[in-house]
Amino acid sequence: MSEKNENPSCFLYGPQEAKYGDRPVPEICDPHDVIIRIQYVGVCGSDVHWYLHGSMGANSIVPGKPLVLGHEASGTVHSIGSSVRSLTPGDRVAMEPGFPCRHCARCKEGRYNLCASMTFAASPPDAHGTLCKFFKLPEDYCYKLPAGVSLEEGVLVEPASVAVHMARLVDVRVGQTVVVFGSGTVGLLCGGVARAFGASKVVMVDILERKLEVAKSFVGGCGTFVPDSGASAEKNATRLIAEHGLDDGADVVMEASGAAPSVQTGIHVLRVGGSYVQGGLGRNVIDFPIVAMSEKELTLKGCFRYSSGDFKLALSLISEGKLRVRELITKTVEFGQAVEAWETTRKGEGIKTLIRGVQD
Amino acid sequence: MSEKNENPSCFLYGPQEAKYGDRPVPEICDPHDVIIRIQYVGVCGSDVHWYLHGSMGANSIVPGKPLVLGHEASGTVHSIGSSVRSLTPGDRVAMEPGFPCRHCARCKEGRYNLCASMTFAASPPDAHGTLCKFFKLPEDYCYKLPAGVSLEEGVLVEPASVAVHMARLVDVRVGQTVVVFGSGTVGLLCGGVARAFGASKVVMVDILERKLEVAKSFVGGCGTFVPDSGASAEKNATRLIAEHGLDDGADVVMEASGAAPSVQTGIHVLRVGGSYVQGGLGRNVIDFPIVAMSEKELTLKGCFRYSSGDFKLALSLISEGKLRVRELITKTVEFGQAVEAWETTRKGEGIKTLIRGVQD
Amino acid sequence: MSEKNENPSCFLYGPQEAKYGDRPVPEICDPHDVIIRIQYVGVCGSDVHWYLHGSMGANSIVPGKPLVLGHEASGTVHSIGSSVRSLTPGDRVAMEPGFPCRHCARCKEGRYNLCASMTFAASPPDAHGTLCKFFKLPEDYCYKLPAGVSLEEGVLVEPASVAVHMARLVDVRVGQTVVVFGSGTVGLLCGGVARAFGASKVVMVDILERKLEVAKSFVGGCGTFVPDSGASAEKNATRLIAEHGLDDGADVVMEASGAAPSVQTGIHVLRVGGSYVQGGLGRNVIDFPIVAMSEKELTLKGCFRYSSGDFKLALSLISEGKLRVRELITKTVEFGQAVEAWETTRKGEGIKTLIRGVQD
Amino acid sequence: MSEKNENPSCFLYGPQEAKYGDRPVPEICDPHDVIIRIQYVGVCGSDVHWYLHGSMGANSIVPGKPLVLGHEASGTVHSIGSSVRSLTPGDRVAMEPGFPCRHCARCKEGRYNLCASMTFAASPPDAHGTLCKFFKLPEDYCYKLPAGVSLEEGVLVEPASVAVHMARLVDVRVGQTVVVFGSGTVGLLCGGVARAFGASKVVMVDILERKLEVAKSFVGGCGTFVPDSGASAEKNATRLIAEHGLDDGADVVMEASGAAPSVQTGIHVLRVGGSYVQGGLGRNVIDFPIVAMSEKELTLKGCFRYSSGDFKLALSLISEGKLRVRELITKTVEFGQAVEAWETTRKGEGIKTLIRGVQD
Repeated sequence: MSEKNENPSCFLYGPQEAKYGDRPVPEICDPHDVIIRIQYVGVCGSDVHWYLHGSMGANSIVPGKPLVLGHEASGTVHSIGSSVRSLTPGDRVAMEPGFPCRHCARCKEGRYNLCASMTFAASPPDAHGTLCKFFKLPEDYCYKLPAGVSLEEGVLVEPASVAVHMARLVDVRVGQTVVVFGSGTVGLLCGGVARAFGASKVVMVDILERKLEVAKSFVGGCGTFVPDSGASAEKNATRLIAEHGLDDGADVVMEASGAAPSVQTGIHVLRVGGSYVQGGLGRNVIDFPIVAMSEKELTLKGCFRYSSGDFKLALSLISEGKLRVRELITKTVEFGQAVEAWETTRKGEGIKTLIRGVQD
Repeated sequence: MSEKNENPSCFLYGPQEAKYGDRPVPEICDPHDVIIRIQYVGVCGSDVHWYLHGSMGANSIVPGKPLVLGHEASGTVHSIGSSVRSLTPGDRVAMEPGFPCRHCARCKEGRYNLCASMTFAASPPDAHGTLCKFFKLPEDYCYKLPAGVSLEEGVLVEPASVAVHMARLVDVRVGQTVVVFGSGTVGLLCGGVARAFGASKVVMVDILERKLEVAKSFVGGCGTFVPDSGASAEKNATRLIAEHGLDDGADVVMEASGAAPSVQTGIHVLRVGGSYVQGGLGRNVIDFPIVAMSEKELTLKGCFRYSSGDFKLALSLISEGKLRVRELITKTVEFGQAVEAWETTRKGEGIKTLIRGVQD
Repeated sequence: MSEKNENPSCFLYGPQEAKYGDRPVPEICDPHDVIIRIQYVGVCGSDVHWYLHGSMGANSIVPGKPLVLGHEASGTVHSIGSSVRSLTPGDRVAMEPGFPCRHCARCKEGRYNLCASMTFAASPPDAHGTLCKFFKLPEDYCYKLPAGVSLEEGVLVEPASVAVHMARLVDVRVGQTVVVFGSGTVGLLCGGVARAFGASKVVMVDILERKLEVAKSFVGGCGTFVPDSGASAEKNATRLIAEHGLDDGADVVMEASGAAPSVQTGIHVLRVGGSYVQGGLGRNVIDFPIVAMSEKELTLKGCFRYSSGDFKLALSLISEGKLRVRELITKTVEFGQAVEAWETTRKGEGIKTLIRGVQD
Repeated sequence: MSEKNENPSCFLYGPQEAKYGDRPVPEICDPHDVIIRIQYVGVCGSDVHWYLHGSMGANSIVPGKPLVLGHEASGTVHSIGSSVRSLTPGDRVAMEPGFPCRHCARCKEGRYNLCASMTFAASPPDAHGTLCKFFKLPEDYCYKLPAGVSLEEGVLVEPASVAVHMARLVDVRVGQTVVVFGSGTVGLLCGGVARAFGASKVVMVDILERKLEVAKSFVGGCGTFVPDSGASAEKNATRLIAEHGLDDGADVVMEASGAAPSVQTGIHVLRVGGSYVQGGLGRNVIDFPIVAMSEKELTLKGCFRYSSGDFKLALSLISEGKLRVRELITKTVEFGQAVEAWETTRKGEGIKTLIRGVQD
């Protein structure tokens, strides 16, 4: 690594082509800037997709423009701009890894996640991710960790914010019945968040029994359901409703798998007037039971990242012990072992793997 | 017709098998009951579907149980129960042709259209429709016509309520841009209602240019768009946005065709954070761009009939002249000519055909 | 008591003039009617007000028309109408003691508590209360008690529904800070419900320290505050905010005392954009800081009884153990001791006194 | 005026002590800055209050720190920062005269008017107003005037935004009945906006008949009401309801006078479940019928300035001809005649007086 820059980073040059290198330490330009020393980076399924394919949806690595991956992270404050009041060097923070333009209609109406000029970590060609030593964010996108929350747990604020955003979009209410499709990190957090929002009954759905074992421990008192892959969505929905005593169907579905059969079953599992949020990303176009949606007068919500208040609430749920994210961390590797970490996730081993930040 | 019963009615026995007959005049059982002398019945696309196929979705004519069709209707009050205060015999009324149990959770939360025990006109096997001489409804499902609204216009309160319900579900707001797919009766009414709700710009979409001609006159100052059937939904959406200056996309889509390409184009025509309501019914399962829905964080609403307050608001819009439904009535036939009326609609002639009630 | 009628009841003839007597056992008229054998009746502050003054607000006992008091009650099903499906004789039920017309605009939009034709227990001149042996309600206003909920606890579903209605009106959300004014039965239940709705911090306010002692045990981890009666509302609000670390003020205020200083302090204790619900009833007209309401752009909600879904949710919170209402029952007397029960409440002894139903 | 600074401005030194002077032309610091050449400034009641008393609520002129007044204004773009894309010099704009920090919780949830760090025109000691030659605003607080909207009308976008904000807060809906208290500029605009939002019936209330004459022409088809100053609020409300056929009361009240009797009558004029927004500012503490608010389960909204989307919608209503603000401009004076303009408003002459910008 270059003596000069001293911001060691893990770059992706293309499919399965990752190399460590150096680049400049970010500088404070705006008086609200904060430079963070990264302590932990989480591995997300999307990181693995980037690593394997060098692309994600419509985006891909630009030749000659290697990209630093990583968007789940925690760190300690290294230095601050002149207007920063809420943080001092040494503070431990969770990091919201994207910030908006603050000027457009979406930003000003409180949905900054929909800002067209978002700067989001690990977006090619220029927005590098958090798999590095130093990272710059505006003050209001850094969240000071309370005494009881560790830096490792701080990484989980990001996926927990995804679940919080889903729960708020679909408006989970006290006393409701909620079915969660997909029992990966985000699905598990959806189950936990639904409980924290007061759901009376949560049913976790996955095709892998072992994932549901984790759900049983993480989502207090949840039910579980393994769909019959040979049966129709209607049949699976009918059985789920019957096995879990959901009467006329569930009040809410949170979809965190992106799989077409889950989407379809989710629509059929809802009661008339129920609500559905789509968190998982899978194929662009799927077979969709639109007449069922109409006749039951369902509400569907697309969902994109997180927005105003989500990080704060997610951190508060973790801090109050309502979301025990520590249980989800199953492995931690050193900064130089990013590829190993991605491989672990690719193989479906454990739940959340963390990569430690650069050690001096 | 039987001397004895004296409630002449048009029965459907099966596909394309309609016969006039008699049945008993309904009797007042509940003190809130109102017996209405039918004056006009409108022909809806669903009537034609019933006539042609003897079925609709999961429902069909039960052998040996011929069904009286018709659910768009107006009439005059014939007799009233002892508790009726708001109506007297002779009053002219628009008729909401279905009423709920009033006891279930859906009824009590204000969404009675989702009541599982709805009694809705022309639902086999027992709930006969309005194509008869006398029809019974509870007082609160009869809407007295103001002086300026004719009995013919009174028929149109029913489809106008569908459009009002859609607009309220999707929450059309003053100043918004609205794209309506389908320019049949309900689509036209959606355009008119969107205008009445304050939409700044309305674009009507149909594959038939001549239908859009009606739109231009009915929906004040609307734009029109004919999709290119050979182009993708994305392409059509891009062109629609460009031709009508919708910047980042439409705020609201009201889908009133049920055609899969319309649904798909509707999703792509919306801006991030936009809202969509599905009014049209077509194939049960269609190709649906779910990732676009997620990434733009759209809100989708299924839509089923109409509910609390819709009939009242629709009638008020007609009465205030904001919805000139008279323009939509293109033909009126006699009571005995129901088949002719259905054929007219089947051929796509005109917009709304009315069937006059039984003349003494 | 008359051999003939056999519905022993406690009548109020005027201020402090209560006499036991008999009246007819109610009969099933509507097929949805349920006759309930009363098991427990709770004493509410309003019962005491009726007892002492023979009136309440604009209502008073009509001379010659003694009124049976009581509106918090539980019982067992005695007999049922022919359409009743969800209950059988012997079932234990919580009772929602008022039912609406089901036909008006308010009923049909889901706010039946605002129905102008409500039949509510203990409303002069004709709607007798629950302090009797047999009481009639429609099936859907009877709530079957789950196995773990006793008949005594069943009485508390009524005041718990008041708190649930307040929390839903003011839209208490996960992570919010809530200040409750008044630590009587409803105030305590507000605190408990705010917790169940996910409030991060609850501060209970009362002028009596001993009432706050109950709060500390009933509302998990709540803060408490005794206002300084010599200080201004602004001063008390400033001190409350400082002592409980509410930063810029509370997110939500639930007012359950009706006292003018509480209302005023409540307005000043809120942050900009905060929300307030008025549950307590006191003087008709009070000094109100309206400019503070405007400049902080607060939302205020009046609150009247309970409505769609509130009883169900209150019972569910009790059943799930989120609202431990058993702790609030401090005394139980026999049917013939209603006056003693009212006196107990008048003196402020304990929290909730129950009156046992007629024993054979 | 100083040769050097060349930003001639009208300063208030204290009560009734206004002097013209010079100060520096603002400079572009942020790349989104826009320097505007002021063309017209409107006179608002608050300007007159400042002029007469040298103070407003808790704020007052700081000795030795004279303040430039004015916050309703339009102008032409003089120069732009390097990132400005939507404007070029010479563009005619309406000006939103305050901008927020963009970083706090209120800014990020879409309620930037509640930002504690707002920079708002004519706020002592440092935020000068628009009664000057050059004024600086961020790009997104400048609204380009469409071809059909004059610079004079552009000034009225500010008070129209107040009315739009009120209408959105109180959620005026198509078909509702709306009573507006106060028939000054904001009250008239409330009436016009209520119409544009689709209100079926608008009743304008004022104690001065001549103000209601303007209302009759400006608010299409509105009713009018002059309260009897000797009668109680209840009596006036009862008469208003009867005279205007509001059945059980109005759906919505928009209060734009700040007078206590108006507030009280407003509460009594509402139907059960109705909504009320407080726009007018009067005495800090008033007699308020809180039990009526509770028993009718009303929703009250405080209201402060305007926020996300209000200016855009107000300008759009003016541009579409739904709000004919030209009718409200009753006098225009030269830049040097500010005191004459304030006196005109103080005497209640006409509706809106404009002050022309500095002429070269």
